[in-house]
Amino acid sequence: MNKFKGRVESLREMMRSRGWDVVVLTGNDPHASEYSAPRWHQVAWVTGYTGEGDLVVTEDHAGLWTDTRYFIQAEKQLQGTGVSLHKTRVQDQVLIPEWLSGQFADYDEVVVAVDGLGISATTVIEIINAIGKDRTAIANVPDLLSLLWADRPSYPQTPVITLGAETVGWSRRQKIDWLRKWLDEKGFDAILLTALDEIAWMLNVRGQDVDYNPVVMSYLLVTADTIQWFVRKGPIPEGDNETEDSFLELLADRVNIQDYSDIGMALASMVDDDYIRKLFVDPSSLNYDLYGILKENTKQDNVVTGKSPVALRKAVKNEVEITGMKEAHLHDGVAMERFLYWLETMLEAGESINEYDCSLKLHDFRSEIEGFRGESFETISAYGPNAALPHYATPEYGSAELYPRGLYLVDSGGQFLFGTTDITRTIPLGPCTPLEKEDYTLVLKGHIALSKAVFPKGTAGCQLDVLAREPLWRSKRNFGHGTGHGVGFYLNVHEGPQDIRQNFNSQALLPGMITSDEPGIYREGRHGVRHENLILCKDAGENDFGRWLCFEPLTLCHFDTSVLVRNLLEESEIRWLNEYNERVYDTLSPYLPSDVATWLRQKTLPI
Amino acid sequence: MNKFKGRVESLREMMRSRGWDVVVLTGNDPHASEYSAPRWHQVAWVTGYTGEGDLVVTEDHAGLWTDTRYFIQAEKQLQGTGVSLHKTRVQDQVLIPEWLSGQFADYDEVVVAVDGLGISATTVIEIINAIGKDRTAIANVPDLLSLLWADRPSYPQTPVITLGAETVGWSRRQKIDWLRKWLDEKGFDAILLTALDEIAWMLNVRGQDVDYNPVVMSYLLVTADTIQWFVRKGPIPEGDNETEDSFLELLADRVNIQDYSDIGMALASMVDDDYIRKLFVDPSSLNYDLYGILKENTKQDNVVTGKSPVALRKAVKNEVEITGMKEAHLHDGVAMERFLYWLETMLEAGESINEYDCSLKLHDFRSEIEGFRGESFETISAYGPNAALPHYATPEYGSAELYPRGLYLVDSGGQFLFGTTDITRTIPLGPCTPLEKEDYTLVLKGHIALSKAVFPKGTAGCQLDVLAREPLWRSKRNFGHGTGHGVGFYLNVHEGPQDIRQNFNSQALLPGMITSDEPGIYREGRHGVRHENLILCKDAGENDFGRWLCFEPLTLCHFDTSVLVRNLLEESEIRWLNEYNERVYDTLSPYLPSDVATWLRQKTLPI
Repeated sequence: MNKFKGRVESLREMMRSRGWDVVVLTGNDPHASEYSAPRWHQVAWVTGYTGEGDLVVTEDHAGLWTDTRYFIQAEKQLQGTGVSLHKTRVQDQVLIPEWLSGQFADYDEVVVAVDGLGISATTVIEIINAIGKDRTAIANVPDLLSLLWADRPSYPQTPVITLGAETVGWSRRQKIDWLRKWLDEKGFDAILLTALDEIAWMLNVRGQDVDYNPVVMSYLLVTADTIQWFVRKGPIPEGDNETEDSFLELLADRVNIQDYSDIGMALASMVDDDYIRKLFVDPSSLNYDLYGILKENTKQDNVVTGKSPVALRKAVKNEVEITGMKEAHLHDGVAMERFLYWLETMLEAGESINEYDCSLKLHDFRSEIEGFRGESFETISAYGPNAALPHYATPEYGSAELYPRGLYLVDSGGQFLFGTTDITRTIPLGPCTPLEKEDYTLVLKGHIALSKAVFPKGTAGCQLDVLAREPLWRSKRNFGHGTGHGVGFYLNVHEGPQDIRQNFNSQALLPGMITSDEPGIYREGRHGVRHENLILCKDAGENDFGRWLCFEPLTLCHFDTSVLVRNLLEESEIRWLNEYNERVYDTLSPYLPSDVATWLRQKTLPI
Repeated sequence: MNKFKGRVESLREMMRSRGWDVVVLTGNDPHASEYSAPRWHQVAWVTGYTGEGDLVVTEDHAGLWTDTRYFIQAEKQLQGTGVSLHKTRVQDQVLIPEWLSGQFADYDEVVVAVDGLGISATTVIEIINAIGKDRTAIANVPDLLSLLWADRPSYPQTPVITLGAETVGWSRRQKIDWLRKWLDEKGFDAILLTALDEIAWMLNVRGQDVDYNPVVMSYLLVTADTIQWFVRKGPIPEGDNETEDSFLELLADRVNIQDYSDIGMALASMVDDDYIRKLFVDPSSLNYDLYGILKENTKQDNVVTGKSPVALRKAVKNEVEITGMKEAHLHDGVAMERFLYWLETMLEAGESINEYDCSLKLHDFRSEIEGFRGESFETISAYGPNAALPHYATPEYGSAELYPRGLYLVDSGGQFLFGTTDITRTIPLGPCTPLEKEDYTLVLKGHIALSKAVFPKGTAGCQLDVLAREPLWRSKRNFGHGTGHGVGFYLNVHEGPQDIRQNFNSQALLPGMITSDEPGIYREGRHGVRHENLILCKDAGENDFGRWLCFEPLTLCHFDTSVLVRNLLEESEIRWLNEYNERVYDTLSPYLPSDVATWLRQKTLPI
């Protein structure tokens, strides 16, 4: 039997013996992080599918819910497992709560088993509301899967570093003061932060507890006179001087360090003592287990839920952070151009290289940058048909060989002590088909249209998204993912609250926000194109019509012009492209080896 | 004392004597119609302000809430009345419910007086929710203002006509069958329709009870075996054979005609008898008085509220309606071109004409069309600075004289037995300033961009709106109204559920929907530009990326090319414009007098 089919069956045996009607599993850690440490790769362990997604198992059905980005990958990886793919972000999608409500319409009571640590309160509440409060019984089993998963990885424990105000602009004390002012204004006694990137931002700490996301597994509780950080770091391993120094610095700033697992008890007793009468918490990153503890131990009106104020404050970068991000993009651009030069040189020399070699080489160039702390996400190095998977995972063994023809796509980014990068370039390796050229050109038109947008203050990303799509739509082409996501400062490469996508999100774009601009086209079995820069939202002045905003591209790496279909481009687009490439050359060339600089001069000549 | 100030004071006296804390008045009729008969021009009677808006009067404040379209008009008309303008559809708007909740934050109980007939249930519920259920006492006083308004106009009573399936595609019986199928599918016993245009559509009847909107003041109650039309038409005035014939036709189709004022009693008794156990009603067009009757006389769960299914069904025009709309636009285009020719000829001859003369002349040309039933809204005939008011009301006496320079804007439309039109053209009367030319060109770019959009099935209007704005935004110009509204078939010139504007409205655009495309620029004290066509949403085929939709302009009237700033236009825009103008000439010229046709040939030469 297929290994994963067997695991689904084991789960069903457990369900039967315990009287559960359905198990809902996510890949979430206890903080609803987008990426999680291996301990929480629960969906992957059960099904073999390694992308993002949620799993639902009933007696007669096992289903994986995931979005457009992962359809091809999921179909491939789920073969033989008996797990069906349920598509989200498509017309007529049926999400898990609605699906469950349909499946169990005739039941008097539905027992829904969840790992309360590995699922957000919001998700469980949506399920309860869909099935009906009176009919739903949640069986909360923390670490549910540990019962089957013998060699399940343990909690991560990595060194903690701190960042100074010279790097992040706002000192820890300033941030705490700001948050306490917010508490005071809103009439709250305390705020519990559960989102790992918000905690890292608040305390100016970074770790490596989650791959690519430089966060520390922890909770942060701030009141008018205490700061309590519940963190899984004790005892500090011998030789981890970084963490020890960081903890001393935090203590000096009156941050009280407590054990991660004490959060529930501490909260309960503080509420019980009337020390906290009004607690604010954002349910979207609160796990269901902790939510249960709060509900059990608090009186009505003790807990106020809402959007964390830290998310928005963190998304609006200050001048110091912007300077850091620009420096990160300068060095990152140098690494990218050196990589692209190497790639072209290798192919011209007839050397045999594959996708994985490329991701290693790009890693090497980034590693030479002082302050480099690793990739900001797993590099997508995809040649030909593989690039049609927007989230292709380049395999270490057996990745595709590159040939001097067609399109190669590389989507990668770095974490630096002074910023985070995320860039995609699609590279013609030699002759391309007319369709490849057209797609390359149309996606670039979309990228440019968004990048040079000017818009009134108050405009939300979803009101701009169509700009990046319209040149594609006009040729009846489209892409199934968002156009832009927020990017953290040496933090998560995906952050909110803003984004640029079709979904209605009323968060206005604000000066200081950094977002990606990454339209694409994907043709299964043929090729994929994506062009991505990070763009900084900036003030563009005021006039009779109000205040205006615009974008500045932060990413510095040329766009290849050799395969552009010239007559698909408007004059204004060509002007933008020539100016951008010229700026890339002017800015990067002083930092490039002379052979690379000479090559880049040719690559960036105006068209 | 200012007459209107006096009326506000009279209202306050009534408030004091009755113990009301606040009176909320709207211009709504009992069906929450956008336009209402003079009887419900309550806000205008109290304040002198004649645009759309809602009035709130407290002991120490009188405020009028209206949106961007009416700011200039409201500021002018409210002078000396003591009524303050509260702006809506702006950043940081404070709507009435929120404002009331702030004003009365310290009150234990707030008595809110409303005319339950002249305010929708939705509006009152929003107010109750904002202030708090426990603290709000609604004083429902039907026809509240009649206590002060001595010569208040009575209910309208105009002839009723019917339309056959050869004109509207679906017979009355087909529509009733469709609605009964919907009731059956949803498990409802009855639907109460309260929106006048939905009732007119369902019964294939038209009246003139509301200026410009060819509707009949009535309620329609449909069950599995009865159709009851509550209409204020008895006794039919002598000589009104139209209404008599219509009623006979309706009776033959088993439509039971009852008196308008019996709706409440009839509903109450049918629910009481258990004849109706589940009644569906759309609260957005339900007045608060009838809502109260329903609440008093029904058990819990007897009444289900939601969006009426008729609105969407009505918005998607069938082939017969589309054919009619095209015919209406052909004749309307002929009238427009004859008018524009007349205008140019008059100015060239040095004749003295003013804005009001123009609206009369345009009316005359439309009147010559067989089947013309009047304007679809009050013609906006605005010269120079007057055109900066998007909803300028052209005065009968003292309207502005036209001179052979600058821009003249005319926004008008007709009701025909076979369709409804709505068109705006901005006409250069002679030399224009560079700014006028630029604005004219940029607005046309926006108009064209939306008109030639291609988009995936499922796209909502708010996801397209930016296309019409982006060319303006790029030059840091904007307009404060929506880009497009739905248009009925020989029905209201504004209809939902779709629209094309910045506000999030998830209703997808569907093939058969007709919407306006009317971006603009308004410069107070200088000039205004708006270019408006009606556009039909159409299928544009299917490919690997899904199903595609596009628009077809229905409006047929040339765009003047003489003041275009050529270098602001892309090649693709010039192509669109030349093709459109050519189509206008080809289609209209056979119907034009030869001098007008010759003139139009010159006006439509390619640029």
